[in-house]
Amino acid sequence: MVLDKVNSPDDLKGLTLEELQALAEEIRSEIIRVTAQNGGHLASSLGAVELVLALHRVFQSPKDRILFDVGHQAYAHKLITGRKDRFHTLRQEGGLSGFTKVSESEHDAITAGHASTSLAHALGMVLARDLAKEDYHVVAVIGDGALTGGMALAALNKIGELGKRMLIILNDNEMSISENVGALNKYFKELQIRKWVQDAEKLGRSILEHISPKLFGLVDRAKEAAKLILHQENPFYAWGIRYIGPVDGHDLKGLIHILEHLKELDGPTLLHVVTRKGKGYKVAEADPIYWHGPSGFDPLRPEKVSKGYTWSQAFGDAVTELAYLEPRLFVLTPAMREGSGLVRYSVEHPDRYLDVGICEDVAVTTAAGMALRGLKPIVAIYSTFLQRAYDQVIHDVAIEALPVIFAIDRAGVVGADGATHHGVFDIAYLRTIPNLQIAAPKDALELRAMLKKALEIGGPIAIRYPRDNVERAPEGAWPEIPWGRWEVLKEGTEAYILAFGKTLKYALEAASDDPRIGVVNARFLKPLDREMLRALARYRLLTVEDHQRMGGFGSAVLEALNEMGLKPQVKVLGLPDRFLEHGSIPSLHRQAGIDAEGIRKALAEMGVPPTYERA
Amino acid sequence: MVLDKVNSPDDLKGLTLEELQALAEEIRSEIIRVTAQNGGHLASSLGAVELVLALHRVFQSPKDRILFDVGHQAYAHKLITGRKDRFHTLRQEGGLSGFTKVSESEHDAITAGHASTSLAHALGMVLARDLAKEDYHVVAVIGDGALTGGMALAALNKIGELGKRMLIILNDNEMSISENVGALNKYFKELQIRKWVQDAEKLGRSILEHISPKLFGLVDRAKEAAKLILHQENPFYAWGIRYIGPVDGHDLKGLIHILEHLKELDGPTLLHVVTRKGKGYKVAEADPIYWHGPSGFDPLRPEKVSKGYTWSQAFGDAVTELAYLEPRLFVLTPAMREGSGLVRYSVEHPDRYLDVGICEDVAVTTAAGMALRGLKPIVAIYSTFLQRAYDQVIHDVAIEALPVIFAIDRAGVVGADGATHHGVFDIAYLRTIPNLQIAAPKDALELRAMLKKALEIGGPIAIRYPRDNVERAPEGAWPEIPWGRWEVLKEGTEAYILAFGKTLKYALEAASDDPRIGVVNARFLKPLDREMLRALARYRLLTVEDHQRMGGFGSAVLEALNEMGLKPQVKVLGLPDRFLEHGSIPSLHRQAGIDAEGIRKALAEMGVPPTYERA
Repeated sequence: MVLDKVNSPDDLKGLTLEELQALAEEIRSEIIRVTAQNGGHLASSLGAVELVLALHRVFQSPKDRILFDVGHQAYAHKLITGRKDRFHTLRQEGGLSGFTKVSESEHDAITAGHASTSLAHALGMVLARDLAKEDYHVVAVIGDGALTGGMALAALNKIGELGKRMLIILNDNEMSISENVGALNKYFKELQIRKWVQDAEKLGRSILEHISPKLFGLVDRAKEAAKLILHQENPFYAWGIRYIGPVDGHDLKGLIHILEHLKELDGPTLLHVVTRKGKGYKVAEADPIYWHGPSGFDPLRPEKVSKGYTWSQAFGDAVTELAYLEPRLFVLTPAMREGSGLVRYSVEHPDRYLDVGICEDVAVTTAAGMALRGLKPIVAIYSTFLQRAYDQVIHDVAIEALPVIFAIDRAGVVGADGATHHGVFDIAYLRTIPNLQIAAPKDALELRAMLKKALEIGGPIAIRYPRDNVERAPEGAWPEIPWGRWEVLKEGTEAYILAFGKTLKYALEAASDDPRIGVVNARFLKPLDREMLRALARYRLLTVEDHQRMGGFGSAVLEALNEMGLKPQVKVLGLPDRFLEHGSIPSLHRQAGIDAEGIRKALAEMGVPPTYERA
Repeated sequence: MVLDKVNSPDDLKGLTLEELQALAEEIRSEIIRVTAQNGGHLASSLGAVELVLALHRVFQSPKDRILFDVGHQAYAHKLITGRKDRFHTLRQEGGLSGFTKVSESEHDAITAGHASTSLAHALGMVLARDLAKEDYHVVAVIGDGALTGGMALAALNKIGELGKRMLIILNDNEMSISENVGALNKYFKELQIRKWVQDAEKLGRSILEHISPKLFGLVDRAKEAAKLILHQENPFYAWGIRYIGPVDGHDLKGLIHILEHLKELDGPTLLHVVTRKGKGYKVAEADPIYWHGPSGFDPLRPEKVSKGYTWSQAFGDAVTELAYLEPRLFVLTPAMREGSGLVRYSVEHPDRYLDVGICEDVAVTTAAGMALRGLKPIVAIYSTFLQRAYDQVIHDVAIEALPVIFAIDRAGVVGADGATHHGVFDIAYLRTIPNLQIAAPKDALELRAMLKKALEIGGPIAIRYPRDNVERAPEGAWPEIPWGRWEVLKEGTEAYILAFGKTLKYALEAASDDPRIGVVNARFLKPLDREMLRALARYRLLTVEDHQRMGGFGSAVLEALNEMGLKPQVKVLGLPDRFLEHGSIPSLHRQAGIDAEGIRKALAEMGVPPTYERA
């Protein structure tokens, strides 16, 4: 095995091309083996193996900084930067992160997880480098999907203006997680069709000779393209960025050669590299959307695994049905069709479906524009990604109280994706916004009831639900929900647990068989059901949330009780004031003490020990 | 007066060109007269007068939707859409908003204030229009500054892909508030130099004849430009947007003519209009930065008025001095050099200063990149604009606890700019983030102490201060501050007011001469000074903040007391759960009951009535 000899990127320097090619295949096997076990970002990482090897062959990490945008594509990078022995722990508790993480390795230049950050990061780095008069390379690897993100485009604008030395690798696989969208992406395809050639003047004849004939095609076309290049017909020109490409991202020899030349150039340069998502693994190449992030599979007989019925699907089914009842309903997603359960919806209601690309801010404000013209838009978005449209929620939706619904998926800890992806701030950052209501259903049926009622009510409403499976609700079922009212699930004589969404089951488990402990489904988080809260204030109250303790639901309960002049004993359970790493969801809940055991312990501290302990 | 006859945009239709030109001058006078009185966005609005008139002459508002990005340039629009009689109330309490506001007029297509939203709004509108099979125009007017915002660029990307009918007016005055930055802006200048001609095929010869010779210059150049157009050498081409321009934005006849033609085109079209900020008012043309938003002046003898020494200047002076002591200090601003008090800094430390443009997300992540490479970046940003970089604070800074300092200006209500600009959510949305500390100085000296200490401590630290004047601190004064400790400003025997920043003076006023009432400078908002809080819990506690009551400082105090098992009587004063409109800051504070009178009233409700009432 070549990989056995590779303990750091330095070890690539002595390898022959054949050894590097063999290494690429070994790395692919290892990626497939470990993601089959642990789940993970399979297709993107397979697509970037040669690119990663070429970069580490040519550049000197950690002196040179190689930034992987999002980090979906960085498994090969992890394997050759001293982490191969721990690679089997990928995405497992205490194991390697599924993304790059600066605290994990000196070779990880940025902590990633959310898209489109790498160019701004790189801009900061080159400014720091030049200010310190240091001399190293900064290379940002960004996908064509991530380049639909506004902050990447805005950073490009500044990078071009300043003209600092920096290499941007556009890793173009025509995909984000779903098919990519956006005019620029169309344009990249066009660039590929036109098969541009290099800027011969700058790069020298030698590179041209190494351009893969597969990509650069007919001589006539090449000539035509060369002519166009002289006219600098290219969007990057307007941005002051030198554009080179496209080149074959699986041609190791060609990549190494061109990178060696690009190293010598000053100013910002963009190399357009065409890769194939899932490269080298037939099923993943054929269906890169499913194999973007499988949660586990049999590597020898790879098949799609149904993960069971999820909250995302429950949402997708509900809006698909609702759209037949409400012609003004419109669903928007920022590049998360599959993740948000919208495949069915997008097929049945294509004219009322929009994927804006990886730009959450645009999704929210586009929804605001729709609401201003009579539609009833629903923005389907993960909790962690709604952070990227926070101002748009306030400025474009809430100030005028527009009827936009936020369907917030992945609320609470999300498990293996870790700190960058936990959706654990939304209650805090949303509940301070006037005009916005927040709800959290306990099951799929309640989700349906809330969605339907939210459409009727109008006004900005956020409905949050977790990453989890959920029991399927009957099609056509639209129960009425008393809006704003909590629900007593179990009566108690001494204490009540106020929980919602995912933590309800823990509460019920902790309270089971104990007549002293009541459980309330506190499904409306803003406004709170003050009437019920007032009635419950005779009892000891335990709030439980899958969200930061600071500023969350428990905090809202304390505020309301204080305003009402009520002083029951209250205990607030939630996530601690630190970033939780990756791990299984139940384990993270256990760590945070919000599971059934944590609840029992808290009840005991409140003077209501579990019955079995009293015995 | 022509303006007397204009009560709605319809009334423009019958005017002659001469009357329209006279109207433009009348409108200019009115804008100067009212902003001299009330303050306001003078220079931008003066620059867009002809453009606004041409748009309303050619399009049919409110059927057609005309969107003004940011709304800085919309005063002429307000004057001709039925609001001239109330125009003297501009930016005053109960009067017209300084921006467009959908709840103010049917002619205001969007509620604006923050930049770069109009294209996403417009996208939503054209999708709603086409879905409903309606037929009207959507016209977005966006400045070259606002186009440096990522969400505008990302929206353009989607607009180009979908190809829906929409007109984008690029109002290019080479300015945001300061000089504009970014490569695209350079490119726009280049376009102007090249003096492009129109796409003759599509627009017909007639338009070419109307192109202002001033702009379109030499025939040879025009030919060359035409050739380039055929090659579609233009960044907008890559985005699938038809580009036309540049045209003279003060040539009413030309503008009307070209807009009449553009009305007929399908698909997305961008018209590049060159305007002059401050047009028609000599001082404003000469110094459009100062006259961007003067707070009032003598229209006959316009002079720069010193507003006194502000918190922004105190910050600017402090960092200018600190930069001499700390060579790793670096200051970033998202297009707010003047507003953030950074003119002096940018002159004295040009190599450690960066204006990224109107892209707050890029500012924060660029700072993260710098911090990863050893610098100590300070992001100078308004509270309301930090909302636009919320995810970047969490994802790019806080997770790895990078040493980035956020200097949060305009914290609290900001006065005349109103609901879109109040900085009243930051404590809530920041305090839920792990690793991040939050402080708020009581005066300029404490600001200096905090900044210096924050640089020493490292780690993400937010320091918030209000829009206000402040007493100048002595140069070179760097007092030590006991980090994390509150400060007792006045002892009390029955109750303590916990306040910080701007509300401290109200607290001291309310408590003056009353030995029962103590006042604490609760200058560290996260973490709280629990030790002192514990000691104070023997007394009645009144928290006061210039911030939403929900989720803010008072809420944090309630959380902490509850965790410590302490149950003093607590009352929380803060802003109510609705959006406050524009008005003077003292008036807004009075409305919210957080001024001295509100504090006295609250104390009375807590059983500690003011001494003068006891008498």
